[in-house]
Amino acid sequence: MEIQRPYLLFLGNAKDQLAAKTAQGILDWRPDWCIGQMRLEGCNADLKIKDMNFQEAAKAGAKTVIVGVANRGGVLSPDWVEMLTGALELGMDLASGLHQRLADHPQLVEAAKRLGRKLHDVRHPTREFEVGTGAKRPGKRLLAVGTDCSVGKMYTTLALEKELRKRGVKADFRATGQTGIFIAGSGVSIDAVVSDFVSGAVEWLSPANDADHWDLVEGQGSLFHASFAGVSMGLLHGAQPDALVLCHEPTRTHMRGLPHYPLPGLKECMEANLAAAKLTNPKVKFVGASINTKGLDEAAAKDYLAKVEREIGLPTVDPIRTGVGRIADALS
Amino acid sequence: MEIQRPYLLFLGNAKDQLAAKTAQGILDWRPDWCIGQMRLEGCNADLKIKDMNFQEAAKAGAKTVIVGVANRGGVLSPDWVEMLTGALELGMDLASGLHQRLADHPQLVEAAKRLGRKLHDVRHPTREFEVGTGAKRPGKRLLAVGTDCSVGKMYTTLALEKELRKRGVKADFRATGQTGIFIAGSGVSIDAVVSDFVSGAVEWLSPANDADHWDLVEGQGSLFHASFAGVSMGLLHGAQPDALVLCHEPTRTHMRGLPHYPLPGLKECMEANLAAAKLTNPKVKFVGASINTKGLDEAAAKDYLAKVEREIGLPTVDPIRTGVGRIADALS
Repeated sequence: MEIQRPYLLFLGNAKDQLAAKTAQGILDWRPDWCIGQMRLEGCNADLKIKDMNFQEAAKAGAKTVIVGVANRGGVLSPDWVEMLTGALELGMDLASGLHQRLADHPQLVEAAKRLGRKLHDVRHPTREFEVGTGAKRPGKRLLAVGTDCSVGKMYTTLALEKELRKRGVKADFRATGQTGIFIAGSGVSIDAVVSDFVSGAVEWLSPANDADHWDLVEGQGSLFHASFAGVSMGLLHGAQPDALVLCHEPTRTHMRGLPHYPLPGLKECMEANLAAAKLTNPKVKFVGASINTKGLDEAAAKDYLAKVEREIGLPTVDPIRTGVGRIADALS
Repeated sequence: MEIQRPYLLFLGNAKDQLAAKTAQGILDWRPDWCIGQMRLEGCNADLKIKDMNFQEAAKAGAKTVIVGVANRGGVLSPDWVEMLTGALELGMDLASGLHQRLADHPQLVEAAKRLGRKLHDVRHPTREFEVGTGAKRPGKRLLAVGTDCSVGKMYTTLALEKELRKRGVKADFRATGQTGIFIAGSGVSIDAVVSDFVSGAVEWLSPANDADHWDLVEGQGSLFHASFAGVSMGLLHGAQPDALVLCHEPTRTHMRGLPHYPLPGLKECMEANLAAAKLTNPKVKFVGASINTKGLDEAAAKDYLAKVEREIGLPTVDPIRTGVGRIADALS
C-alpha cells in the first residue's frame, strides 16, 4: 500500500518548528515529493516551501495530504475533519502519523469511500502479519541499532541508501516508523504491531531479494531501553541483518524518557546486539558507527569520532559532518 | 476485570483430548472452580467431571461459561453463537480463549449488553497500557524463563504459588497467557499486546506490593526463539524479576515450530536471560531449574535432574515428579 505522491505537507497550527519535524524530515529526504506546505492561522512552523491551500495543491497535482501534526488539543478537531474532508473531495488521499486514526472519524471514512480515496494511518498497521519464521532469505540486509532511541538510526539508513544508490548499488531503505514511512512511501510502524508478530512483520517488510541487493532497515529503540527493548529484539531477529551500524548521540546523559537509566557503553551495546542477532544470522557483523555530533563543536566532534574509531576499530562517521561513504565502502 | 466463578467448561465438539487442553489445565489447577463440563455431539474429549447443559449449570450456580475450544471450522459457528446467547440469557458470562473474538459477534454483544453480562476475550487485551517506566517497585518477583516455548513455565509458576501459599508465604501467580488467565481469573495475554507496551503491561500486571510478597510471573516464549524473543524480552524487563527459574524439556530436538533452530544450552540460556534482566534489576539471580521430564522414564529422569543440578549448581526439580519445594526454599 504505497502512499501516492507528490505530497502536500499540512502543518496545521504547529506551535513551533519542532512540532513540524515529521514534515521537515520528509522535505529533507524527498524534496521532489513535496509540492508545498499548508499552514493555518497561528502556525509557528515554516518549511520555507510554497504555501498552498487544498485547492491550489490539488490543481498543482498533489496526490496526498500528509497530516504530520496534531492540532493543539492533540486530536483532530471537528473543523480539521471538515477541512480534510474538503481535501478528499478535491481528489487527494490523506495520510496521518498521529496516534488518533483518520479512520476513527466516520465523516472521513464515508467521504473516502464515496470518492474512492485512501486514508493512511501509518502508525497503525492495517494488515495482519504472520509469526516470524526465522528462515534465511536471499538478499543482504543492514540494520541500524542504537545505544538509545532517537540517536539517528533513520537518518543513517537514509544516508546509506542515498550513498549506495549513487554508487549504482541496489539498495532500499525499509521504514519502521512513521516519518520513515512517509519518506519511503510505505513501511510498517513496528512499535504498533502486536508483539507476537514483530519479527514476522520485519520479515514481510524486507522480503527475499537479489543476492547483491541491500535492504537498509531503519532501527527502533535500543536493547538497553527498559521500555522498548522487546521491539528492538524482534526487529533484530526479523531483519536477520548481515551488517549492523551502531548509532549514538554523545551528549545524551540518560536513556530517553528514563532519567535513572544511564546509556550503555558502545562496546557493551555492540556485544549485546551481536549476541542477539547471531540467533537468526550467525554471520552478522558490525560495519561501523554513526554518531550524531550535532551537540559538539567541530573540533570536539572530530576528536570524538577519532576516539570511537580507535575504541571499536571500525569506520566511525557522522552522516552530516563526514557523510557515510566510509561505511558504504564496506557494503559496495 | 475478574472472570466470575465457578466455571462451566464448554468443550463443544473437541476432536480429541488435546483440543481440550485449556479446559484440562483449568481443571487441574482450579478443580473447585469447575462446576461441570458441557460436551456436544461428537466431542471426543472428556474431563471426567459432571456433564451439564447450560440450564443445569446455571441452576448449579455457574457464573461463567469458558469457551476453550473452537469448533472444527476453527471459528464460532452460527449455531454455537445461538447456543452461547442462551447461556447469557440464563445469567452466565462468557469467556473465550479463541483468536476470534466473542465481541465480533453482534448477537452476543447485543445480548450481553441487554442482560448486563460480560464477554471476556482473554486473548485480546481490552484495556490500554502505558509504556514501561523501568522504575523499581516494592515487592518480590519471580519469572519463569525457558529454553523454548511450551516447556512448563506456567506449570512451574502455578506449582510455586501452591507451595508458597502452603508455607504461609504471600504469593500470587500472574498470568500472561490464555490458560493462565482462566486459572488466575485475570491477567494479560502478553503476546497480543502492541509491542510498544509489552513491558508496561507487565508492570501493570505485577504492581507494587508488600515487601515480603512474591509475584510469580508466567513466562512466554524464549530469548532463543526467533519468532517470539521480543515478547520474552519485554516480559523480562517489565517483570523486573528478583528470581529466575529456568524451564526446559529435555527431549525437544528443535525450537518449537522452527525445525532448523536447535535449542540453546542451559548455561547459555541462563547467561542471556541474566544479562538482559540486569537492565531493570541488577540483583536478579537464578534460583533453580524446572525440568519437564514427562518424556523420560523414572531412572532417566532422575539421572537427568542430577546432571543438570551438577551443571548449573542450583536446585533442579520436576514439578510433577519431585515438586518445587527445593526452589520454594530459596524464596521463603
